[in-house]
Amino acid sequence: MRELALSEVYRLLDPGPVVLLTTSRAGRDNVMAMSWHMMVEFTPPLVACVVSEADYSFATLRATRQCVIAVPAAKLAKTVVAIGNCSGRTTDKFAAFGLTRVPARRVNAPLVSECLANLECEVVDTRFVKRYGLFVLEVVQAWNDPTQRNARTIHHRGRGEFTIDGKAIKLASRMP
Amino acid sequence: MRELALSEVYRLLDPGPVVLLTTSRAGRDNVMAMSWHMMVEFTPPLVACVVSEADYSFATLRATRQCVIAVPAAKLAKTVVAIGNCSGRTTDKFAAFGLTRVPARRVNAPLVSECLANLECEVVDTRFVKRYGLFVLEVVQAWNDPTQRNARTIHHRGRGEFTIDGKAIKLASRMP
Repeated sequence: MRELALSEVYRLLDPGPVVLLTTSRAGRDNVMAMSWHMMVEFTPPLVACVVSEADYSFATLRATRQCVIAVPAAKLAKTVVAIGNCSGRTTDKFAAFGLTRVPARRVNAPLVSECLANLECEVVDTRFVKRYGLFVLEVVQAWNDPTQRNARTIHHRGRGEFTIDGKAIKLASRMP
Repeated sequence: MRELALSEVYRLLDPGPVVLLTTSRAGRDNVMAMSWHMMVEFTPPLVACVVSEADYSFATLRATRQCVIAVPAAKLAKTVVAIGNCSGRTTDKFAAFGLTRVPARRVNAPLVSECLANLECEVVDTRFVKRYGLFVLEVVQAWNDPTQRNARTIHHRGRGEFTIDGKAIKLASRMP
């Protein structure tokens, strides 16, 4: 993993990839799959995401206020779905799915070595948690894997359907 | 446009497509391009999105509390970028880009006939508008175009780069 400028973070999350969210509490790490996230600010990068109270990660995220968003490439699609199909309540998912943990620099939640990018996040706003399960995260440290520069990501379409990134196009957009 | 069950709405927005947002006030319609959106609830479908105070649509959305989210297919990519590159302050974008307006059923903002789906939305929560420009919308009526059933969408990667949907895959996900 190579350090990535925080100003580049939005480019990872804007296209709407399925991501992994890792948390850790009392020596126990967990990882969940997540599609409901969006950027809310470029710099510092703020990300809104929805973690349901029904998710095992919910209590840990609310208590520790720290997590990692890891972006998996399409080659991990089956693993991502398997992660989403079970709960950390009953499964040590890192062991079950053979994911390699790497210590983060700024937060107490593991990076996922196999992912193309990892974003260390702190919870900065919990006012919408009760109503929507919506956490606002600040990305405080970002990493990417230069060897996966052109990796394709997956996008959730519901009911087991996913789309893999296709052709990239360049247009004269004035947006950042 | 054919009516779409509200329970199907998340399948349009989960994959993270660039969308169009239409608004209307005092007989003047406008349309902007938007990438910062996410689902926050399945049923009724709730969508969070960020509209900057700098956007011309911001004041209209806050005042009227109504909008339409239109999902364009990749064939409209150049038009979508052109829409994002100018402001409704100085341009009648519907005229400038030859988009066909269709009256909505439940809100006072136009559907965009060329898009593969149109979601009529009411603003249901403005508590995060001041801090993040974050509006929570409820989709109260949804439409799709059956002739564009397999249309590909575009995903924003920043700086003029977009990805077009590629291959679809089916995996045994237990997620809705």
